[in-house]
Amino acid sequence: MEFKTVLKERAIYIEELLNKYMPKEEGYQKTIMESMNYSLSAGGKRLRPILTLEACKIVGGNEEDAIPFAVAIEMIHTYSLIHDDLPALDNDDLRRGRKTNHIVYGEDMAILAGDALLNYAFEVMLSSSLGKKNPEKYLRAINEIAKSSGIYGMIGGQVVDVQSENEQIPKEKLDYIHNNKTAAIIIGCMRAGAIIGDANEEQIDEITKYAKNIGLSFQIVDDILDIVGDEAKLGKKVGSDIDNNKSTYPSLLGLEKSKEIANELISEAKKSIEKLSENVEFLNGLADYIIAREY
Amino acid sequence: MEFKTVLKERAIYIEELLNKYMPKEEGYQKTIMESMNYSLSAGGKRLRPILTLEACKIVGGNEEDAIPFAVAIEMIHTYSLIHDDLPALDNDDLRRGRKTNHIVYGEDMAILAGDALLNYAFEVMLSSSLGKKNPEKYLRAINEIAKSSGIYGMIGGQVVDVQSENEQIPKEKLDYIHNNKTAAIIIGCMRAGAIIGDANEEQIDEITKYAKNIGLSFQIVDDILDIVGDEAKLGKKVGSDIDNNKSTYPSLLGLEKSKEIANELISEAKKSIEKLSENVEFLNGLADYIIAREY
Repeated sequence: MEFKTVLKERAIYIEELLNKYMPKEEGYQKTIMESMNYSLSAGGKRLRPILTLEACKIVGGNEEDAIPFAVAIEMIHTYSLIHDDLPALDNDDLRRGRKTNHIVYGEDMAILAGDALLNYAFEVMLSSSLGKKNPEKYLRAINEIAKSSGIYGMIGGQVVDVQSENEQIPKEKLDYIHNNKTAAIIIGCMRAGAIIGDANEEQIDEITKYAKNIGLSFQIVDDILDIVGDEAKLGKKVGSDIDNNKSTYPSLLGLEKSKEIANELISEAKKSIEKLSENVEFLNGLADYIIAREY
Repeated sequence: MEFKTVLKERAIYIEELLNKYMPKEEGYQKTIMESMNYSLSAGGKRLRPILTLEACKIVGGNEEDAIPFAVAIEMIHTYSLIHDDLPALDNDDLRRGRKTNHIVYGEDMAILAGDALLNYAFEVMLSSSLGKKNPEKYLRAINEIAKSSGIYGMIGGQVVDVQSENEQIPKEKLDYIHNNKTAAIIIGCMRAGAIIGDANEEQIDEITKYAKNIGLSFQIVDDILDIVGDEAKLGKKVGSDIDNNKSTYPSLLGLEKSKEIANELISEAKKSIEKLSENVEFLNGLADYIIAREY
């Protein structure tokens, strides 16, 4: 089966899980559930939850144990998109061809829906972890998710990204943004999955390296696609980084050098994962897919 | 010692704890820490963290074990105020006599600082719970905080409050708002404190009743103060509920009946707490203080 088909199938499975874990749209406060679920069901590649489950499986765990963590990381990713799209931030009216949350529900509800999704992610992880055999393991896994999405992870990256608009920044700072805005929650969700799968420390280390390398590569490829990408295939406008005078890998290092680095990171990622298991087909395929998205 | 002095002393202790737990203002992303800490150090009565510690103590626990939970609940309370003050919500420029977060740091940073404080509250609770003797207890306590601040608690109340502006609503709906917007996190933080203090189920029940009753009474008194309060003493404008055509206890039931209900709730709260311990002085004093704030 072609890798894209496998990925699509897994995304469909994640959609089913999300539908199961979404809050019911009822009660006086049901508008907030509608607003949360509107954005949760807006599609996307669902890479983060897929990676959470795969990390659990590849270390020998039962991927079903990691389901609440997979769902939670997608809720956190979704809340970050809702808030990112707000007028005070990126001011985007459309995402994946649909109206953004604040366009449909108003800015007040979009702010609260983002808050609610972040909070609900923790509710899902915590409530599903109660009464389990090894509670310390669950605390550790939730802690990984929390660290990776806060000021020493995703939010940290967003802040520096926001502050670096219309500014030429050095590569070190750009790497900070990419590593935190994008790679951090990929690392967090894979570490959480591996922990739930009872990974040993060496396995967690290799998973971490894989996640860090594909996370950075993913973001570099995004930078590249913003220059050479096909709008129709990508489903979004290209050229916005240049329009916004944003520092990117291509703007700092040139297109060819950026491609080279993205490729190197993917090779490194594959090396880490091959130490882990013989069933590396999916994670190898995913690594290749990240750079094959375009050029 | 007068109760107000005791309360003041405890608030000072909470300030010290907050200072200790605040994130360091360093790194590329340090603006977000500054923005978080600006609002965290804006003062206030610090009732929620005080109640968290007291709930732990009154059931026979060591209140120091509940410190991360006390700090976390104040971070959650603070994030909710930052987002509440945003132009898209209450659009307030001042809070406790200081400029609101978005006035100082901009709307973009205020949105992210609120997100960051909510996330950081979980980081503090989770990281401090790792490696403890009874991890299940910590999971339970964090779960209480999470439930009480989400769509089935505080955010639920906020949503219905926002949607009920300029609208006459029935008492049942007003109770929903008060019980969720205000009482829920008082219940959550006291239950968490009690769980950390190894409370039994009966103790948790009585703590829950106390918290629910003082929480609702607190909000009814706020409604009353908005009519009869002294602006200088309150440190905020009165009459805004009437200006905003908001449904309140006095607008639905009249001033006298509202006072009566607030008093009844306080008596009920005291009854619950007296079953718990002989050292009920502080919680009784706090219950009295809630209605003595003004009339």
